[in-house]
Amino acid sequence: MKILEQLKQQYQSFVDQKLNLDMTRGKPSPQQLSLSDRMLDNLTKEYVLQHSDCRNYSIPSLLTGLPEMRDFFAKIIDMPSDNIIIGGNSSLNMMYDTMLRAMFFALPHSKQSWSQQGKVKFICPTPGYDRHFNICEAMGIEMITVPMTGNGPDMSQVKALVANDPSIKGIWCVPQYSNPTGETYSDEVVEALASMPTASQDFRIFWDNAYALHDLDTQDVERVANIYSACQRYDHANRVFIFASTSKVTYAGGGVAMVAMSDENLSWFKQQMAQQTIGYDKINQLRHLALLPDMSTLTKHMQAHALILKPKFEMVDKVLTDMLGNDGQYAQWRLPKGGYFISFETQPHCAQRVVELASQAGVKLTKAGATFPYGKDPMNSNIRIAPSLPSVEDIEKATTILALATQIATLEQNEK
Amino acid sequence: MKILEQLKQQYQSFVDQKLNLDMTRGKPSPQQLSLSDRMLDNLTKEYVLQHSDCRNYSIPSLLTGLPEMRDFFAKIIDMPSDNIIIGGNSSLNMMYDTMLRAMFFALPHSKQSWSQQGKVKFICPTPGYDRHFNICEAMGIEMITVPMTGNGPDMSQVKALVANDPSIKGIWCVPQYSNPTGETYSDEVVEALASMPTASQDFRIFWDNAYALHDLDTQDVERVANIYSACQRYDHANRVFIFASTSKVTYAGGGVAMVAMSDENLSWFKQQMAQQTIGYDKINQLRHLALLPDMSTLTKHMQAHALILKPKFEMVDKVLTDMLGNDGQYAQWRLPKGGYFISFETQPHCAQRVVELASQAGVKLTKAGATFPYGKDPMNSNIRIAPSLPSVEDIEKATTILALATQIATLEQNEK
Repeated sequence: MKILEQLKQQYQSFVDQKLNLDMTRGKPSPQQLSLSDRMLDNLTKEYVLQHSDCRNYSIPSLLTGLPEMRDFFAKIIDMPSDNIIIGGNSSLNMMYDTMLRAMFFALPHSKQSWSQQGKVKFICPTPGYDRHFNICEAMGIEMITVPMTGNGPDMSQVKALVANDPSIKGIWCVPQYSNPTGETYSDEVVEALASMPTASQDFRIFWDNAYALHDLDTQDVERVANIYSACQRYDHANRVFIFASTSKVTYAGGGVAMVAMSDENLSWFKQQMAQQTIGYDKINQLRHLALLPDMSTLTKHMQAHALILKPKFEMVDKVLTDMLGNDGQYAQWRLPKGGYFISFETQPHCAQRVVELASQAGVKLTKAGATFPYGKDPMNSNIRIAPSLPSVEDIEKATTILALATQIATLEQNEK
Repeated sequence: MKILEQLKQQYQSFVDQKLNLDMTRGKPSPQQLSLSDRMLDNLTKEYVLQHSDCRNYSIPSLLTGLPEMRDFFAKIIDMPSDNIIIGGNSSLNMMYDTMLRAMFFALPHSKQSWSQQGKVKFICPTPGYDRHFNICEAMGIEMITVPMTGNGPDMSQVKALVANDPSIKGIWCVPQYSNPTGETYSDEVVEALASMPTASQDFRIFWDNAYALHDLDTQDVERVANIYSACQRYDHANRVFIFASTSKVTYAGGGVAMVAMSDENLSWFKQQMAQQTIGYDKINQLRHLALLPDMSTLTKHMQAHALILKPKFEMVDKVLTDMLGNDGQYAQWRLPKGGYFISFETQPHCAQRVVELASQAGVKLTKAGATFPYGKDPMNSNIRIAPSLPSVEDIEKATTILALATQIATLEQNEK
């Protein structure tokens, strides 16, 4: 019997099981969410009243968030508290709002908003995060792809692009445990991003440090260099907006988000924000402070996440290695040291077919192409694996199906 | 001794007391906030898990909020749940976002966004709410004032304006217990707003029903007619965005906001919203549902608010009547049946001086002019009194000072 037929038989046995496994999004598992369940009832009136009266409308000086919450993030991202603005439950919302503001309102030292200046383009390192790309697409911002290298985006390409085209207004970055490649930008890449000359006078880096604390191991961790310090050093303090949140620290649906920026950017941002809201929910900030009162509690909390996540990532790696090798015959991937994803690279022209086959066998994967602007992966080879939500047992099954689907799709492709 | 000198002596005795009373904003009092203190710890894990897992990122079908929360507001504003979108903690934020979206993205059946069509103008009934005006000013929207009549805006003026000027894109309305006049739009006004021909094809009413439930009495209440039904009747279903929130029902800083609109508007809104967020905080929606599980609980809850608020409004009215009469010699005002404000009308050219004198005697009032676009009250006569925050005792003192300040300012003005 031909090998392809054997594989299809094996595959059919999974189809018959009518499985329903979801590896589409970087969602924490219920076990992880339960680490924060004290937030459901951890406030007392006395505690609330110690921090001005957060039940009421904010006083103007608290527009940017509770000082304690700003301090909390200041320690995480290593920036002054005064440069931090606390938002609602979603850093994506803050990114969207920041982008729309820059499109509509002129940035510091600019006379015109981005959209008033004509065509707006953004650099999108790929593979990257679909929700970033969706924001650009919704606002009519043309996306220019630059490949990731294993240490961040290819900076020779980035530098050449931004040096010559004033309509390139920014770049999306997930600098640590990047979505989906899991790589961390090297110090050289950070230095180049901070120092590079840009033809645009109001160029901005959207620095989505979503996985700032999200190691899979307590020992072997990666930390991206401080982009803000680097920008300051090159007299480009206004160049970067830094985003983070507790969405994958506490509750993914009820966390606290933040954005950090230079003094000038902050004045600009506050000017709009003061018209938009009297203040974001500070009761939820208090729930967070009560759950995570200091950095050592936070560290232990993140270690508990890692203990749950690591076996899932290892199971993906083990099954793939057992079934596919990692020599490029079928696919390539890298076990990251943190973050929420494994970037899986099939042979050219196979990714869509792999996702389709997996889906028919009950394993939902992120749509092929989703990691590229406009949903179009030119090589049709990248698949984002999100192992956080299912149990280790389910991941073993799902990854087996993924590996089988990859073998089948590769052999089918080779036969063409 | 001259009467003005006597008044100044009396006034000085208050200055000497170095009071510090705040009547600037419509803030609930601590006693009111405490009505909702069960929200601090009223959730259990079991309750949360009954409503999909709200701790995690939303599933796409819950982008617009928990069905139970949409039903909650549907009953309050008498609209189908399907036409309601739940937001974060601030309806102001939803208004700002809706305005910026309409400025940037073309509305249904339009080829261009408002700002792409050139100059944008908005009708602002006055006196009105300063935060509405600030949103327009921030976005470069020219504001056209139309006077309030006691039953809503002067519709003959509104109709003439919108019939002829296609650059007038909308009107701000606080239709029930209006901020600051306390009046409720008559059925005729609602009918006229819904039916009037507009030169603009994408005209929108921003219907800020902030005081939908906020009566001062259980018996003698006012209810504005259903604007959405009226708009539907005239085949103008897309004409209105309806906003409300629980900010003055539960926690002013940690409530739940909503916006309601036609099916076509909703598709348009969701298209942008889906790029902006995976979903607003649903844990806080659950806290609300646990606190206010049905309409009869809500009614009792609002009656408890009224019991706290009514004596404060009555004290303002009593002191003013005792000291000033209400015959127009010094000032005019009306005790409203709901809402958060009393609109106080001095003689022309006196309001700024009254606010200044009150401030020097330790009573902070909303800045004179704040109830008009660009902060400019042409008659310099309107002052917004916000009696909700201080105690009845403090209100007696503060209103005495306000009345004295009004007498002094009027006599000073008469001498000019």
